[in-house]
Amino acid sequence: MTVQLSELPEVRLRDVPPAFIDALKARFGSNCSTAEAVRAQHGRDESAFTHVPAPTAVVFAESRQDVCDAVKLAHQYRVPVIPFGVGSSLEGHLLAIEGGISIDVSRMDRVISINNEDLTVTVQPGVTREAVNAAVRDQGLFFPIDPGANATIGGMSATRASGTNAVRYGTMKENVLALEVVTSDGSVLRTGSRARKSSAGYDLTRLMVGSEGTLGIFTEITLRLYPLPEAVMAATCSFPSVQDAVKATQDIIQMGVPIARCELLDGISVAAVNAYSKLSLPEDAMLLMEFHGSPNGVKEQIETVQDIAAEHHGADFQWAETPEARTKLWAARHHAFFAALQSRPGCVAITTDACVPISRLAEAVTQAVDEVHAVKLPYFLVGHVGDGNFHMGYLIDPASEAERELAEQLNHQLVARAIEAGGTCTGEHGIGLHKRGFLEVEAGTVAVNMMKTIKQALDPHNILNPGKIFQ
Amino acid sequence: MTVQLSELPEVRLRDVPPAFIDALKARFGSNCSTAEAVRAQHGRDESAFTHVPAPTAVVFAESRQDVCDAVKLAHQYRVPVIPFGVGSSLEGHLLAIEGGISIDVSRMDRVISINNEDLTVTVQPGVTREAVNAAVRDQGLFFPIDPGANATIGGMSATRASGTNAVRYGTMKENVLALEVVTSDGSVLRTGSRARKSSAGYDLTRLMVGSEGTLGIFTEITLRLYPLPEAVMAATCSFPSVQDAVKATQDIIQMGVPIARCELLDGISVAAVNAYSKLSLPEDAMLLMEFHGSPNGVKEQIETVQDIAAEHHGADFQWAETPEARTKLWAARHHAFFAALQSRPGCVAITTDACVPISRLAEAVTQAVDEVHAVKLPYFLVGHVGDGNFHMGYLIDPASEAERELAEQLNHQLVARAIEAGGTCTGEHGIGLHKRGFLEVEAGTVAVNMMKTIKQALDPHNILNPGKIFQ
Repeated sequence: MTVQLSELPEVRLRDVPPAFIDALKARFGSNCSTAEAVRAQHGRDESAFTHVPAPTAVVFAESRQDVCDAVKLAHQYRVPVIPFGVGSSLEGHLLAIEGGISIDVSRMDRVISINNEDLTVTVQPGVTREAVNAAVRDQGLFFPIDPGANATIGGMSATRASGTNAVRYGTMKENVLALEVVTSDGSVLRTGSRARKSSAGYDLTRLMVGSEGTLGIFTEITLRLYPLPEAVMAATCSFPSVQDAVKATQDIIQMGVPIARCELLDGISVAAVNAYSKLSLPEDAMLLMEFHGSPNGVKEQIETVQDIAAEHHGADFQWAETPEARTKLWAARHHAFFAALQSRPGCVAITTDACVPISRLAEAVTQAVDEVHAVKLPYFLVGHVGDGNFHMGYLIDPASEAERELAEQLNHQLVARAIEAGGTCTGEHGIGLHKRGFLEVEAGTVAVNMMKTIKQALDPHNILNPGKIFQ
Repeated sequence: MTVQLSELPEVRLRDVPPAFIDALKARFGSNCSTAEAVRAQHGRDESAFTHVPAPTAVVFAESRQDVCDAVKLAHQYRVPVIPFGVGSSLEGHLLAIEGGISIDVSRMDRVISINNEDLTVTVQPGVTREAVNAAVRDQGLFFPIDPGANATIGGMSATRASGTNAVRYGTMKENVLALEVVTSDGSVLRTGSRARKSSAGYDLTRLMVGSEGTLGIFTEITLRLYPLPEAVMAATCSFPSVQDAVKATQDIIQMGVPIARCELLDGISVAAVNAYSKLSLPEDAMLLMEFHGSPNGVKEQIETVQDIAAEHHGADFQWAETPEARTKLWAARHHAFFAALQSRPGCVAITTDACVPISRLAEAVTQAVDEVHAVKLPYFLVGHVGDGNFHMGYLIDPASEAERELAEQLNHQLVARAIEAGGTCTGEHGIGLHKRGFLEVEAGTVAVNMMKTIKQALDPHNILNPGKIFQ
């Protein structure tokens, strides 16, 4: 395996003809910007890449037709287009490494329709996960997928995102029912239906979910919703070690407990969260859990999990009794990434995203922690451990080449072990630029070649977010 | 919409060079058969097509290498290959409408590994769903997907099958974790991993699941398993009308009850099932239900569902108290298709497979029943109504062109309404030959063209089950 460094891969800017920019300005007026600040803002994300190239122009799309017209012009002039939501990618998805333009869909933020009888909602791609939930809450419904950032549904669909509820409710893969997609020549593709299942031909919905903007730009997304559970209880439980906490998680999953959330924070992360969110959680390894169901069902789950936690030296449960306390706890969890960044001022994070079969999780996490302790690099550890997914964040000084190389070396070792254990280099963040080298190792040449063949067939001029996922 | 008749589409046999058959015989010896009876058996399925063309030869594959070698020869000679499991397709998937050979994988029936800690099992494609369950039961695990027939896992993966448990456990889409696939040039593709989720590149697993043998032949399949529930209760409940039963189902789903099975049979189907399986169920519209969970959880679900059933004029629940009674009940349900066939000796069934958003289900089912009553065609009605999926089976005399046309006309009207309602022409059987015309209407030209582009890119000589899904 070659180590994929987080230095930017070779930038090979493609030609952006002035006539193309003129045509964009004629079509979009002030909704096409070439202002330096706007371009810079659309050429970066939350990844650790530095000195990133900005797009030549940014189109603020306000409708499907806007996206179609921008892509048609790009297709005509063979110019790369990169869709942009809120810029919360962690893997370099938004960086214009071959030049081109950014299509910002954040103004396409309309909830188009809510169907409370069928538990579905159709939204534009710029709607954020929090906005979806705000729109459906008064119907007694919720949308469970919650990456750390308040990402857009378009971006979450494009990266096959998940979050804290995936252990019970699945990921974007399970929760996107249908898509409207603008393809490489500006055509409008519709995939899926509002039915709960279908065997009608190739599953284009699932091909598009996780395609990271390389096969099309989403303009409408139909999501599955869930009734708000009758009873919800959240609790934290501290453990003497990360290993104990993970072993408890393994038992919870293997027993088939329908736990809704099962999150790990190590003591360092809890300390960062305490400082950032003004909490006073015990600064040990901790599971943050949530239970959904009927009052009796929740009671049963809790009893089972308390027994399991006790077997693994867990402390007593601390309850987040009120909805407010619960919201505060989960907001703190969602801010863990930013809290950790603040724990080392000026740092950037190189984040791992491995996901392993649950039986291999304790070993994977323990080795990762031992390794980072040995080299004394600042870090944090959080994980959607119910899924076998955990994030080491190596907090490096962006000016230190040595730290960057060290972090990438650890990342590399961690991923190699995860793949060896039957797992994946990315549970939820996607490949982007940062994990391209890992994909080759994980999926193998036949699979990556098949992905490239599909890309070539569907985007023959390679204008849709080129250079992402694979070179 | 053009009416897609169940007459066989034009047969355009492609050249099968004698040198190719000689090469197969040299490689496979007696595992390559050209016997008339063997060929005929591999050229038909459970669909209503008559006068079907048989493959020129049948290769009985016993290993991945066998499949690779057969496909490599077919690739070299540009000869179609059709994978074959137990022949339970309802839609003409197995018919050699362009000639070629059948690759029978039923001897690849080994359960390769069971991982009870990770709740996964890896099997060869010829393993049947019942064999999977027999293999994992003593570990306290089960595999929930159960189409009517005791189909192979290979065939179920290829058609994105589901069955009675999908309302709770999902379909093959959700339950295939990883695949090994022989592609059109005989290469071996591996997709997915044993991790519960991944964002690593295009979701080739989901592209392959439901591809009906047109993109590759599966040689290994890794499935998700579930712990056997602590408590299981099964019950039947009769209703004065199909509409009442469906409306009760809508309420059950909309309330978020985690019901494990929710099956509809109309009175005609119950009568056929009684005769076939020697039962004495009341011959009215009926829901067959099953509840999984903890003892208290099951109790709560039952109380909720009993209240809902009562609101829709449901009779008292009849319990299948013992495991034996439960097994007998569900075996009877699984035999409903064959029971219905026997209710009109000599008939064949033209089966619909529409699936609609749950809010539109009562209307869809009621209109279908009214229509078939109006024309007085023998029929049966069963449905995985918790998913919005129902099957009308029109029991026609295969010698009567008039009945065949009438049945297809009803099928056509039913599907047109389902698509109009936001649903799909096939919830679980796949497109095959029979529903190709419907796919075009449902998915639209852009989507079908994209499917064809992918097919062309991945199978440039069109040797993998040609003519299925689309022409």
